[in-house]
Amino acid sequence: MQFDLTQQYISNLKKTIKSDDKDTLRKGMEELHPADIAEILDELSKDEGRLLYSILEEEIAADVLVELEEDVRENLLASLSSKEIADQVIDNIESDDAADVIAELPDKVQEEVIKLIEDPEQASDIADLLTYDENTAGGLMAKELIAVNKDWAVLKCVREMRRQAEIIDEVYAVYVVDNDKKLIGLLSLNRLLITSTETKIEDVYEENAISVPVETDAEEVANIMDKYDLVVLPVVDSAGKLVGKITIDDVVDVIKEEAEKDYQMASGISEDVESSDKAWVLSRARLPWLLIGLVGGIFGAQIIGLYEHDIKIYPEMAFFIPLIAAMGGNVGVQSSALIVQGLANNTLGVESLTSKLIKELGVALINGLICSAVILGYNLIFSDSLALSLTVSVALLSVIIFAGLFGTLIPLLLDRADIDAALATGPFITTINDILGLVVYFVIGRLMYGAV
Amino acid sequence: MQFDLTQQYISNLKKTIKSDDKDTLRKGMEELHPADIAEILDELSKDEGRLLYSILEEEIAADVLVELEEDVRENLLASLSSKEIADQVIDNIESDDAADVIAELPDKVQEEVIKLIEDPEQASDIADLLTYDENTAGGLMAKELIAVNKDWAVLKCVREMRRQAEIIDEVYAVYVVDNDKKLIGLLSLNRLLITSTETKIEDVYEENAISVPVETDAEEVANIMDKYDLVVLPVVDSAGKLVGKITIDDVVDVIKEEAEKDYQMASGISEDVESSDKAWVLSRARLPWLLIGLVGGIFGAQIIGLYEHDIKIYPEMAFFIPLIAAMGGNVGVQSSALIVQGLANNTLGVESLTSKLIKELGVALINGLICSAVILGYNLIFSDSLALSLTVSVALLSVIIFAGLFGTLIPLLLDRADIDAALATGPFITTINDILGLVVYFVIGRLMYGAV
Repeated sequence: MQFDLTQQYISNLKKTIKSDDKDTLRKGMEELHPADIAEILDELSKDEGRLLYSILEEEIAADVLVELEEDVRENLLASLSSKEIADQVIDNIESDDAADVIAELPDKVQEEVIKLIEDPEQASDIADLLTYDENTAGGLMAKELIAVNKDWAVLKCVREMRRQAEIIDEVYAVYVVDNDKKLIGLLSLNRLLITSTETKIEDVYEENAISVPVETDAEEVANIMDKYDLVVLPVVDSAGKLVGKITIDDVVDVIKEEAEKDYQMASGISEDVESSDKAWVLSRARLPWLLIGLVGGIFGAQIIGLYEHDIKIYPEMAFFIPLIAAMGGNVGVQSSALIVQGLANNTLGVESLTSKLIKELGVALINGLICSAVILGYNLIFSDSLALSLTVSVALLSVIIFAGLFGTLIPLLLDRADIDAALATGPFITTINDILGLVVYFVIGRLMYGAV
Repeated sequence: MQFDLTQQYISNLKKTIKSDDKDTLRKGMEELHPADIAEILDELSKDEGRLLYSILEEEIAADVLVELEEDVRENLLASLSSKEIADQVIDNIESDDAADVIAELPDKVQEEVIKLIEDPEQASDIADLLTYDENTAGGLMAKELIAVNKDWAVLKCVREMRRQAEIIDEVYAVYVVDNDKKLIGLLSLNRLLITSTETKIEDVYEENAISVPVETDAEEVANIMDKYDLVVLPVVDSAGKLVGKITIDDVVDVIKEEAEKDYQMASGISEDVESSDKAWVLSRARLPWLLIGLVGGIFGAQIIGLYEHDIKIYPEMAFFIPLIAAMGGNVGVQSSALIVQGLANNTLGVESLTSKLIKELGVALINGLICSAVILGYNLIFSDSLALSLTVSVALLSVIIFAGLFGTLIPLLLDRADIDAALATGPFITTINDILGLVVYFVIGRLMYGAV
């Protein structure tokens, strides 16, 4: 039942497009879900895409457009007039998607399209949605919802739903408002279905519906919907009036994007890219972190340079440079990743900063002592320098402790300063810990070689 | 409206629990959502938790139990008899949650609890769910669903819903089956609400409902629900019979867990842990990757050891060891992270392996040339050794290219061999690239110092 996109399918389709066989194309697309057609369009060239798009039915085409990658959508929208965008696209999709599509258009086209929307209510809804930051509840919400007055009977409520059925695709709940249009509760559809039509809404609705203000951060919205297992979440303005609703599918996208962003940061990728993007896009996203690493490496070289004389006498000191640097980096990344993840999922609990650091010290001591013991054993067997053996183990323990504490502290401090804590992960923390590790290593080395 | 858990709140609550003031406790819990109570319980000691849990109303208590962290739930379940678990917990939650709770019990208790469930249908549903792997559609699905025969009228359908309303919390769609109970489509609730009661289901239902077989992998389920924006997904057996439904909230958990797992792998954490876990749990999750790094460091030491003589003569060679190692590691992590993410999100597209490697070569060339030029500039100005300057730049370019290709290739090969590609990220790829980088660096170094 699911469609599976293959290289074979794309190459056949490209041939059909080349031969301009519109009937075959139309027939092939008829059986597919808009999300599948979008996946296909993402693989076609600009001209092929425009041709395939042009043969789609209006409603399907609008749904496909919403699902596309941004650059592909941009190409298709550029082939449509403002009138076509207003009539064929915007009129066939929900207000949140409509606002997202319009927001991507050049400023001048935006105004034109909004003016050309026939239904004045729809036009003002979309214009309103465009005023919110896309990373807030206002930016995620759609205006399509069914609100009923608490004084109505169930019958009137069902009639209202029938009236609106053409506009709204899926309804998961009916919102109950008072005479000032303030949200006071909700009524689930199955409740509505099984209640006698004369019953007053007031007597059957659930109070205390969870809602969020329009300015709530998108990540916070995701955490709330996830925590309370909500499929749809009403949005209210500062006066408590119901202004929109957020559905879970939009929030799943937020959760995925957020997780991807953190993952990419931890991996040293600074923009939201995909493996299928063009080489220069990928280069650009990866270069900044490499340059940070490079600067770190230059600092490292300067620190080792200070100890050039020691290395000439004890060249074996150089052997363990990569080990010390790598272990500091690894421990730092582990610690900071746990904090970043805790911040993102709101699972840090109520532990204080001090108790977090004490715990991290415990973890670092356990793992540091084990690793130091392993490397001490190795060096006592295979190396003939006691000074080196002691230096490596003591330095390793110190580096693991320092890196653990740094890795815990830095993301927490960034978060308190309202900077994205994920910045602390990846090459950044690795680089700091590399340098720190080298300093510790050589300072301890000089002490040991002096003492032993 | 949302509850905000603070350290202050917990410490006050602990005092109330200590003074055994059950009335105040009961009153305080009454206003809270089960998910909030679960969050509170996660912060209490075992005994405090048991006391607080004991004062909750039965239905609320069951919902709270489902939301808890596994170890906290285990503690509470251990304080209940099998009869209490069957009557007070299992009877109040949906079948998928019931199966999850029972699966966590010791084998002997599992059997007892299932025997003690009063409703034989419920008992057999749960026993059936327990047979599926938790990472498949069968492991995610619930048995509670409303299936109607295509020959029925809407009225009969609504009656069936009324009959089942007590068992099922939220209904998002009604499934339409034929006389063999095979799934043939679905009917959305709003459609049902706005259709006249005499209409036959056959005339109003939507065909081609997207469904998955019970054995579908959980990640695949998540990708399908995300791609097609589904709130609920029906599950069928090998004969096409409807056996259950998966709701989006369970899939959000899968998406989050999957993203966390990949993130933790990339950060060198081998178990699913949280920053709030105990120190020894965190140590255990982090130690394996540190030991891998340690072994890598020992290999690195041995490689540098082979060039001990060179270092004695040209100690400046040691200066750039951390830079070369770190850059190899960074590039490797970047490349592998992009592949792992593409595999997880199903966004690798239809590009072939060769074209992926060619693109990665392009990225590596662009970034490698830029980085090499920067470091060459630095060395020409600040270092008096031309051989060193050339060695560092040539080695850096080579390392960036190798690491990029390795980072792309390894996760793809792991995936083809049905091994989790995320294994390739983090300390593993960093360590390999560290070692590789050192070999390249010293080989080129000897060539350069010989030639210049």
